[in-house]
Amino acid sequence: MIRYWASLFFVLSTYSAEPVDLILSGRQVVTMDAAQRIIADGAVAIKGERIVAVGPRADIDKVYKAKQRIDRPDALITPGLINTHTHAPMSLFRGIADDLRLQDWLEKYIFPAEARNVTPEFVRAGTQLAVLEMLLGGTTTYTDMYYFEEVIAEATAAAGMRAVLGQTIIAFPVPDAKTPQLALARAEAFLKQFAGHRLITPAVAPHALYTNSDESLQASRALANKYGAPLLIHVAETKREFDESKQKRGLTPVQALAKLGVFDGRTVAAHSIWLDDEDIAILARKQVGVAHCPSSNMKLSSGVAPLPKLLKLGVAIGLGPDGPAGSNNDFNLFEEMDLAAKLQKVITMDPEALPAKTAFTMATIGGARVLGLEKEIGSIEAGKRADVIAIRLDAPHAWPLFNVYSQLVYALKASDVSDVIVNGKLLVRDRKTLTLDKSKIQAEAERYLGRIRKSITY
Amino acid sequence: MIRYWASLFFVLSTYSAEPVDLILSGRQVVTMDAAQRIIADGAVAIKGERIVAVGPRADIDKVYKAKQRIDRPDALITPGLINTHTHAPMSLFRGIADDLRLQDWLEKYIFPAEARNVTPEFVRAGTQLAVLEMLLGGTTTYTDMYYFEEVIAEATAAAGMRAVLGQTIIAFPVPDAKTPQLALARAEAFLKQFAGHRLITPAVAPHALYTNSDESLQASRALANKYGAPLLIHVAETKREFDESKQKRGLTPVQALAKLGVFDGRTVAAHSIWLDDEDIAILARKQVGVAHCPSSNMKLSSGVAPLPKLLKLGVAIGLGPDGPAGSNNDFNLFEEMDLAAKLQKVITMDPEALPAKTAFTMATIGGARVLGLEKEIGSIEAGKRADVIAIRLDAPHAWPLFNVYSQLVYALKASDVSDVIVNGKLLVRDRKTLTLDKSKIQAEAERYLGRIRKSITY
Repeated sequence: MIRYWASLFFVLSTYSAEPVDLILSGRQVVTMDAAQRIIADGAVAIKGERIVAVGPRADIDKVYKAKQRIDRPDALITPGLINTHTHAPMSLFRGIADDLRLQDWLEKYIFPAEARNVTPEFVRAGTQLAVLEMLLGGTTTYTDMYYFEEVIAEATAAAGMRAVLGQTIIAFPVPDAKTPQLALARAEAFLKQFAGHRLITPAVAPHALYTNSDESLQASRALANKYGAPLLIHVAETKREFDESKQKRGLTPVQALAKLGVFDGRTVAAHSIWLDDEDIAILARKQVGVAHCPSSNMKLSSGVAPLPKLLKLGVAIGLGPDGPAGSNNDFNLFEEMDLAAKLQKVITMDPEALPAKTAFTMATIGGARVLGLEKEIGSIEAGKRADVIAIRLDAPHAWPLFNVYSQLVYALKASDVSDVIVNGKLLVRDRKTLTLDKSKIQAEAERYLGRIRKSITY
Repeated sequence: MIRYWASLFFVLSTYSAEPVDLILSGRQVVTMDAAQRIIADGAVAIKGERIVAVGPRADIDKVYKAKQRIDRPDALITPGLINTHTHAPMSLFRGIADDLRLQDWLEKYIFPAEARNVTPEFVRAGTQLAVLEMLLGGTTTYTDMYYFEEVIAEATAAAGMRAVLGQTIIAFPVPDAKTPQLALARAEAFLKQFAGHRLITPAVAPHALYTNSDESLQASRALANKYGAPLLIHVAETKREFDESKQKRGLTPVQALAKLGVFDGRTVAAHSIWLDDEDIAILARKQVGVAHCPSSNMKLSSGVAPLPKLLKLGVAIGLGPDGPAGSNNDFNLFEEMDLAAKLQKVITMDPEALPAKTAFTMATIGGARVLGLEKEIGSIEAGKRADVIAIRLDAPHAWPLFNVYSQLVYALKASDVSDVIVNGKLLVRDRKTLTLDKSKIQAEAERYLGRIRKSITY
């Protein structure tokens, strides 16, 4: 399909100006296509929800005439960044409890704070804050696991952002469901409500192996497969999870999940740190996508995922900032790229272990593969959805520009993102959000700050 | 002295308005004084080069009348950040050679590129680029080891920034000296030229144990002590350095340097990764300051410095981004704080190993202690030099604000810095640099990009 469109471009180029909706041009277009083409003085033509052509600006301008154009001669044009694991509404708990052991953090701080605060209104405000931050940082697709996921979906779609959203299934009572049976029923309603949505891919999100019964896990998989939906799950995040699974079942978490059939269908395995060689082979064979979360894995002392081994077997790897309430404190894929590369280098004592280009791949087309959306997003190619960003090179940390991938991963920042297009629609222009009310979101965050402070006793 | 001024403030508060040059106010003033006071709705009064008072804004306004005032009700006011190790002019080599083994990186890329490009003009342009980036990111003092250090000093002072600058002493011919003897003579001239300068602390910088003769190291120490100057040196950066020293001398690098008397005077030991328990005790006993460089140590696969052990023995620790040509790609102390904390947590598997407050201490008063400047800079206290910054809270990643140190270390970015004052002088106002010509610096960087590309054959 993509090749078809690409050749169509050359056919069309012999005819006169074809109307398109938007042309975005920049100093270099970093396509992340199979050939990893970088086009100097390049442009992207967009019609409706899709990219119709990418090439040198002069060639694009010969063939297409745009209703609107954004020329950024001092910017890189890249695919929108893809977040493969997060808990968006936790933005309202940013910094509430840092530098703590996981068990203390969860049981003394996060669970009580959630029990007292998480309502549909909270989830809406938290999602808007998260989406605002993500869009301003160049993220065009995110992947979520939380409660009241239908509210998250509404708020995300209203802002024009793309997301894969998983309704949580968990064994104990949570803000939106008293039992896993009720959670599964909510999940099914959610899958029906957002089936075929142009921006939202609804998913089923059993929290983890150790927080669900085997029956709930199998029911989650069956439900996901019934609707052709992905399943999102935390996998082998902590040594404790690994050890307990081995002790209880004689199997690693990955082996246990595989045996239960949880991987028989599109699966996104968040973290995937504690893996033995057999586990890695299973993930590869079952085509499970891994959402790598370096900030969270470092900050919570969870461990270091064996990325070189996973990459070697062809496992799709994307990046995730995880939740901003302890696991991390923001949704910043520029920082996750930088960390992913640097962490592997120091752990393996090999500076070639994870080069910049691999890290940028993880944030774009690699993330798309993790989500099973690689035919639709993750690269700038004719025929794909128009999820494209411009990253300014006007800050001193961007000069000089010897190597594009080095600059993207190690030097450029979320604050350098100037323009963001999702599904053909301009959502951020010159760092101004066009679909979200920034001051209203700030006021809501302040209001929740006061409320949450009052609700907690520590 | 500081207590004297603080009490004077309360005495003065009964009199009417005392004239000062500048009042800077903000939502919270994070003082980093001994009591780690955080003042809500606070202000700092500045007269000449020094802070005359810090306190609640209402109290400051009762006592002082300012010629100029900057009110930032939506910003944190903190001490300027302190960079304790870098190679500023290497900014022009940003991204030239990443993801390589140290030996290849140095011998195949950096040394040839330096031999062909490093002139006084290059050093001036590179320094201006580095200083521009550092100031915009809230760094008010930096520490440098490079060539033509007198040119670096001139460019830095012209921009109004504070720095501790070390003229390099090394065994082989380098761009500014054919022999270590010539380098020592250049260093002495440099120490004389900048003696007593209000912004520049000249220093002597023998590159490392393994790149100098014992005689050069001892001569460097003697020279530094003759002028009461600090000595800057790379220490125990790689396992190879550690192993070779043990093999050749029967001593670790720290023990060898101690035996040579190199630590008998103010010393800044960059990296300090490969340390045994005796080494740590030596650093503590000799009051050697450690410049911790997490980005560089990770990116070059050098290793992880044993910060908890160093902190336990009271060793002063600061942060350094190192050089931006392979070791890192920018001069960003917000990222170094974040990395310092996260790296220790994952390595020790203890999320309490290095809390946010400790990381922020390293970037401020800890760095000042490393440089021996803790009586002058590193905290906001009456009597100290006025090196103060404002950090805006107007980006979504800054909301809500539960914990100031968490926000500073894990969420806020260099791009949030709005105003920068060094030695009482406003250098950056609302993200506009007042002492540097940004477009000229960018044009120079582009010009050097072309030149450097032509000069290298790989």
